[in-house]
Amino acid sequence: MKIAVLGYGVVGSGVVEVLAKNRQSIEKKAGCPMEVAYILDRKDLTDALSAGKQVRDFSVILGDPQVDMVVEAMGGITPAYDYVKAALEAGKNVVTSNKELVAAKGAQLLALAKEKNINFLFEASVGGGIPIIHPLHQCLGANQISEIAGILNGTTNFILTKMIREGMSFTQALALAQQLGYAEADPTADVEGLDACRKICILASLAFGSHLYPDGVYTQGITKITPEDVQYAENAGCVIKLVGRAAKGADGKVQAMVSPALLHRDSQLAGIDDVFNGILVRGDATGDVVFYGRGAGKLPTASAVVADIIDAARASGTIDTLQWEDSDGNNLAPVSQYPVTAYLRWAYTGKGEAEAFVTQALGPCQQLRRPGQPEGEWAFLTTQPLTEAELEQGIQQLEKQGFEMLSLIRQLDY
Amino acid sequence: MKIAVLGYGVVGSGVVEVLAKNRQSIEKKAGCPMEVAYILDRKDLTDALSAGKQVRDFSVILGDPQVDMVVEAMGGITPAYDYVKAALEAGKNVVTSNKELVAAKGAQLLALAKEKNINFLFEASVGGGIPIIHPLHQCLGANQISEIAGILNGTTNFILTKMIREGMSFTQALALAQQLGYAEADPTADVEGLDACRKICILASLAFGSHLYPDGVYTQGITKITPEDVQYAENAGCVIKLVGRAAKGADGKVQAMVSPALLHRDSQLAGIDDVFNGILVRGDATGDVVFYGRGAGKLPTASAVVADIIDAARASGTIDTLQWEDSDGNNLAPVSQYPVTAYLRWAYTGKGEAEAFVTQALGPCQQLRRPGQPEGEWAFLTTQPLTEAELEQGIQQLEKQGFEMLSLIRQLDY
Repeated sequence: MKIAVLGYGVVGSGVVEVLAKNRQSIEKKAGCPMEVAYILDRKDLTDALSAGKQVRDFSVILGDPQVDMVVEAMGGITPAYDYVKAALEAGKNVVTSNKELVAAKGAQLLALAKEKNINFLFEASVGGGIPIIHPLHQCLGANQISEIAGILNGTTNFILTKMIREGMSFTQALALAQQLGYAEADPTADVEGLDACRKICILASLAFGSHLYPDGVYTQGITKITPEDVQYAENAGCVIKLVGRAAKGADGKVQAMVSPALLHRDSQLAGIDDVFNGILVRGDATGDVVFYGRGAGKLPTASAVVADIIDAARASGTIDTLQWEDSDGNNLAPVSQYPVTAYLRWAYTGKGEAEAFVTQALGPCQQLRRPGQPEGEWAFLTTQPLTEAELEQGIQQLEKQGFEMLSLIRQLDY
Repeated sequence: MKIAVLGYGVVGSGVVEVLAKNRQSIEKKAGCPMEVAYILDRKDLTDALSAGKQVRDFSVILGDPQVDMVVEAMGGITPAYDYVKAALEAGKNVVTSNKELVAAKGAQLLALAKEKNINFLFEASVGGGIPIIHPLHQCLGANQISEIAGILNGTTNFILTKMIREGMSFTQALALAQQLGYAEADPTADVEGLDACRKICILASLAFGSHLYPDGVYTQGITKITPEDVQYAENAGCVIKLVGRAAKGADGKVQAMVSPALLHRDSQLAGIDDVFNGILVRGDATGDVVFYGRGAGKLPTASAVVADIIDAARASGTIDTLQWEDSDGNNLAPVSQYPVTAYLRWAYTGKGEAEAFVTQALGPCQQLRRPGQPEGEWAFLTTQPLTEAELEQGIQQLEKQGFEMLSLIRQLDY
């Protein structure tokens, strides 16, 4: 098996390293010898493992009929998409860690792989070293999956953990994450929830059989979470986590969202801290199954890529269980219909009891407290089922009555 | 695909139910139609799903060349072993949930399946509905696994959870477990750790490539755990769990044990409560990955069996990654060499400071306290690395000095 690696950054170099380090057992499992023949990168590579393998022109790889496996570890859509498409069209298996690519083009690339009777695999695109794509389509194959929820982004989970455990502000925690190399200089994709959105879209596409495009999914990041919110959450027995979730509604449409969420301390997702990821899969037969581990990092991610390489090497043709249909976006239910329970923090100094107004607008609520709570600050947890539309209406009503909304964080009961 | 189900108890009937309920998606994933042709059971079956399928004589199944898949859900070694062996020899795939059988005869049955180029699969034998066998050999295939540790028995985990959360005694908690159907009338296999031992042996055999027989593995149950131990553990920031674990030592031999253990509250295994199971796998590339879910129950276990049926249906020949060699028992390191940290509770009313004697015998220790601690009761946590042999020596020394050991529970740092 001749392998070409596209991109020699963290993941690409990790793949070459794992292949070298565990070569013997990997070749035994794959049932064939493994050779990294080419490494595509623009920058000069100087380490021993890449020696004599660097190319700067993808057409060298594409034109070598002996290359039967391409590992795409460049990230982004351009030029990764063109390269992956060309590789598949040339009959080469592709393994990628690129969640942006899979979330944007997965259905199309899976169909192309199927047409050529080869494989397009992407275990590393979600959950880093945690096996999740494979268990979802293969090990849980006897189930109808009804729901998936996950802490899918290590950077935001690290930031929230620091806010919860050490009382840091978002800005302080982000600065620490950047200092430790957990957050990039431009942290937008992480802190605004885009990365988590791509991942939940990949999982939902696979679980529900129809491509879920990130553009349509309501996505809220963690930039507005404050230490006050953390304290009120604690008063409710909860921690705040960034959760990506997708559930199949009774109408067959998918309800999907990425947002910060209050999770009760007893939740199996509540204890997933720091840069770790955790993914809960709810099946009709198996109940809740949770997968937990390092969601990022060089070797964990590389390990998932190499597991895919082994799978592709062993497969006789396309793995049929890893497929989903394309969609026109009609597979997503409108947010207004989703059921919701929410924590709301308000500034209100007007006349009359705040609780009475809030109860009138949102139904029965639980009032929350925090140490040092100033006069005029109120926090409530709704306790009766609402739809997002009803929640929105209630908020508008309260704003008309002189309430200023300081925070809205949904509560989830995983 | 014509399927015969051996045993129509909880698991067997669950398999037939899941196959009926999710038939369409299962057949799509398997790539072929699925038909339960025979159900072997001695008792009269009267439900609709089994109608017209019951046989009482295994030779009917064995003699039907159209049966290409046998599901063994009888449990125990006799006659399950004979039936499974005969089925494999006749070229029929076998899927089983029977951990006792796999732990006793796994290497032999895997070799037989390989000889016939078919499959012997047993995802349901460990962790019920939690995918673990498959992820271990396939998804984590790029890793060298160094260690596995798990809460592998739901009955004992339920009992310990009741002891920890509600202060019950072992006897009270066992009675409740029996009342709720979580524990059998004869709970020996669960509470003495035998069930957990079979499961860790299966996982270790797969991870380290050589059959680990339960007979050789030091196994201690939970019958001697008291509410006092639970309180001292709490004082150390720990909970008590029954943990099965196996690690590969520097000499290539396996260190394996089943025992109650103090786990720090922050441990990813500490939050696994009630009847849930959790399994931690430590890989060189992926780090720690944890799998969590319902470790038993009709539909979760059936779901794992059906996932294996799909795998076997899709496989072209034996799945080579699911193999291990037989062994003569020399693959297991002697317990005396294992590193150990331990909690010890003593009765000592002699002259002199207890702490000084204990420190002299076991090295530096942390003294623990509990509410209502009577005079003459002492509890310590060792804080320097010892071997099991050194621990045993220290205990003997203290017993000579008038100490009576009330409890010994190891501490683990997963």
